[in-house]
Amino acid sequence: MFKFTITAKEARARTGVFTTPHGDLITPVFAPVGTQATVKTLTPAQVKELGATLVLSNTYHLYLRPGDDVVAGLGGLHRFMRWPYPMLTDSGGFQVFSLAQTRQIDDEGVTFKSHIDGSSHRFTPQRSIRIQENLGADIIMAFDECSDPNDHQYSKLAMERTHRWAEICLKAKRRGDQALFGIVQGGVQADLRAISATFIASLDTPGIAIGGLSVGETKQEMHDMLDVVQPLLPENKPRYLMGVGTPEDLINGVLRGIDIFDCVLPTRLARHHSAFAPEGRLNLMNATFARDERPVDETCDCYTCKTFTRAYLRHLIVAKELLAGTLISIHNLRALIRLMEVIRTYIADGTFEENSSLLLQKWSDNAKRSIQSEVN
Amino acid sequence: MFKFTITAKEARARTGVFTTPHGDLITPVFAPVGTQATVKTLTPAQVKELGATLVLSNTYHLYLRPGDDVVAGLGGLHRFMRWPYPMLTDSGGFQVFSLAQTRQIDDEGVTFKSHIDGSSHRFTPQRSIRIQENLGADIIMAFDECSDPNDHQYSKLAMERTHRWAEICLKAKRRGDQALFGIVQGGVQADLRAISATFIASLDTPGIAIGGLSVGETKQEMHDMLDVVQPLLPENKPRYLMGVGTPEDLINGVLRGIDIFDCVLPTRLARHHSAFAPEGRLNLMNATFARDERPVDETCDCYTCKTFTRAYLRHLIVAKELLAGTLISIHNLRALIRLMEVIRTYIADGTFEENSSLLLQKWSDNAKRSIQSEVN
Repeated sequence: MFKFTITAKEARARTGVFTTPHGDLITPVFAPVGTQATVKTLTPAQVKELGATLVLSNTYHLYLRPGDDVVAGLGGLHRFMRWPYPMLTDSGGFQVFSLAQTRQIDDEGVTFKSHIDGSSHRFTPQRSIRIQENLGADIIMAFDECSDPNDHQYSKLAMERTHRWAEICLKAKRRGDQALFGIVQGGVQADLRAISATFIASLDTPGIAIGGLSVGETKQEMHDMLDVVQPLLPENKPRYLMGVGTPEDLINGVLRGIDIFDCVLPTRLARHHSAFAPEGRLNLMNATFARDERPVDETCDCYTCKTFTRAYLRHLIVAKELLAGTLISIHNLRALIRLMEVIRTYIADGTFEENSSLLLQKWSDNAKRSIQSEVN
Repeated sequence: MFKFTITAKEARARTGVFTTPHGDLITPVFAPVGTQATVKTLTPAQVKELGATLVLSNTYHLYLRPGDDVVAGLGGLHRFMRWPYPMLTDSGGFQVFSLAQTRQIDDEGVTFKSHIDGSSHRFTPQRSIRIQENLGADIIMAFDECSDPNDHQYSKLAMERTHRWAEICLKAKRRGDQALFGIVQGGVQADLRAISATFIASLDTPGIAIGGLSVGETKQEMHDMLDVVQPLLPENKPRYLMGVGTPEDLINGVLRGIDIFDCVLPTRLARHHSAFAPEGRLNLMNATFARDERPVDETCDCYTCKTFTRAYLRHLIVAKELLAGTLISIHNLRALIRLMEVIRTYIADGTFEENSSLLLQKWSDNAKRSIQSEVN
């Protein structure tokens, strides 16, 4: 049911097709995040129109609200949110560690209080799988523990727990129409990442996730960890770099053999009026855009760029109109999805390495200039 | 340029076509309100998809933000908000009287402070026309004064000023591609409404608006005023009942010869989680909808009803997801636009009067039950 076919290769980068019960995923792919069973401010029709193929939703959030049993009773997540295409859920682990108000970790699981109402809950590997089976995404995740990446001792402990929990998850899994990915942990510790990649690869899951990155480490550390992990992973399985990232991260990830990405960045930036543009991230609230008749990005094919001026977007922001968030989300998501399309074409042509430095320059300049404009 | 052709008549109700520079309006018509150059939470593509043909925008708001000169510099309102279909602007009068923080009325105009920043501004009839010419809507309004409808003395004074201002507006008007409507005032005073209708009709504007209703008077009073005004208005000009209204008001308005309506109700209700449904206005936040697999209205052809369950809409509301407002706005607007389509068909078939009591019963039951469910 879950077949991964590599269609082109260039050094460590590759393009492929991952077959799921809700359609084929062309990789490398960027997945918009629909935390609470909705990509914020967008209808599924709009998400589809901008070229998205995979949407991620969060187990922790949906377990709390509306409840995974409610979603199951309504026919599962695809049907509930009317996204009949591939979906992925995380295990809830990361959110429990980062969002829940208090949490106590033991060898069997995590007890935590809801960030919504302070009520007590407990996640175990079995429970996470049961919830994800209720939700019914095509790709589901083993329950894992994220550590402080710089703390070798804790990272080792968390990694070992993650490995035991991955085995428990595999045993607990009952549905045949969901691909359970194991997760490589180990912080920014090269020795642990190597152990973890080897162990998770040995579990023979239909895909492998790399967790615990993009949590505050440096870009160099992230690249180093990907360089350690990649050679130890089987070639014929999709690799998912969780919660990553910026355009620069996507380029660097694909260069290091990553196939799947997700990140809240495009929609979060949109809510803060920030749009990806050729000259850097634009804070569209800026008064300089008040009479700017250009689209956000003249080269972009999204509804927002094909239709509206920067001046109109700025007006919506200043007038506190929610449509601003919708329109900028459409553009920012399309920008990353289009970047992946461009990367796939380069890989197919065997020109990705040669073009990657130009792409990286464009997008890191982009990030650098954005910092200036956000300070101004 | 502005031709009104009556295509069917039944008693006082009629269907027609009003030709504007941005396309034909099939009447009777309900116009969604796009106060700040956006129908709240919807893209123009979504507004078009739900069958809207005319959008209203507010002169007061756009004058303050982004400024009518900015809109003019960007090619006018149609181009600014990318709504290339018929548009209507009000004169700013009603907003100045109801929104501005302080206001001083004299015979030449109104001095007021912005509700945004308290800055001082002055509207005169000439200024209102100049602003509306900068905005560039197809249908524009004479600057008028709304009175306390029960105060005969003040209503007379305001009406007389409205009449003088209407003449000034007509003289001030320069653009040939905008239809300036005069506005009938007179509160709930039958004698004043008769005087005002006769006077405004004598100005021979391409259409006539009826202002100062739906401002707190009873339904009976509104109907009585429409009954007074209608026989005094020329048959061959479209009649616009400003700021009205509820589904019941639309039915009662068409029965009394009204052709154009606008109201914020559908989008405002949506922001308060309230949806028009066959069994009454639904407060979709209600826990009874948590597992309700039905659409808001099984008979509705809108994107929301064709796609989503009440359970999903409730989840979005509870999870504070903005998509809830978008989806309910789509349905509520479609419900009123569809009601107008139904009414037009009845008029064409000569069965509107015969069906109007059923329609009224449905929609007043609707309103009554909504009050109960909002209390519960």
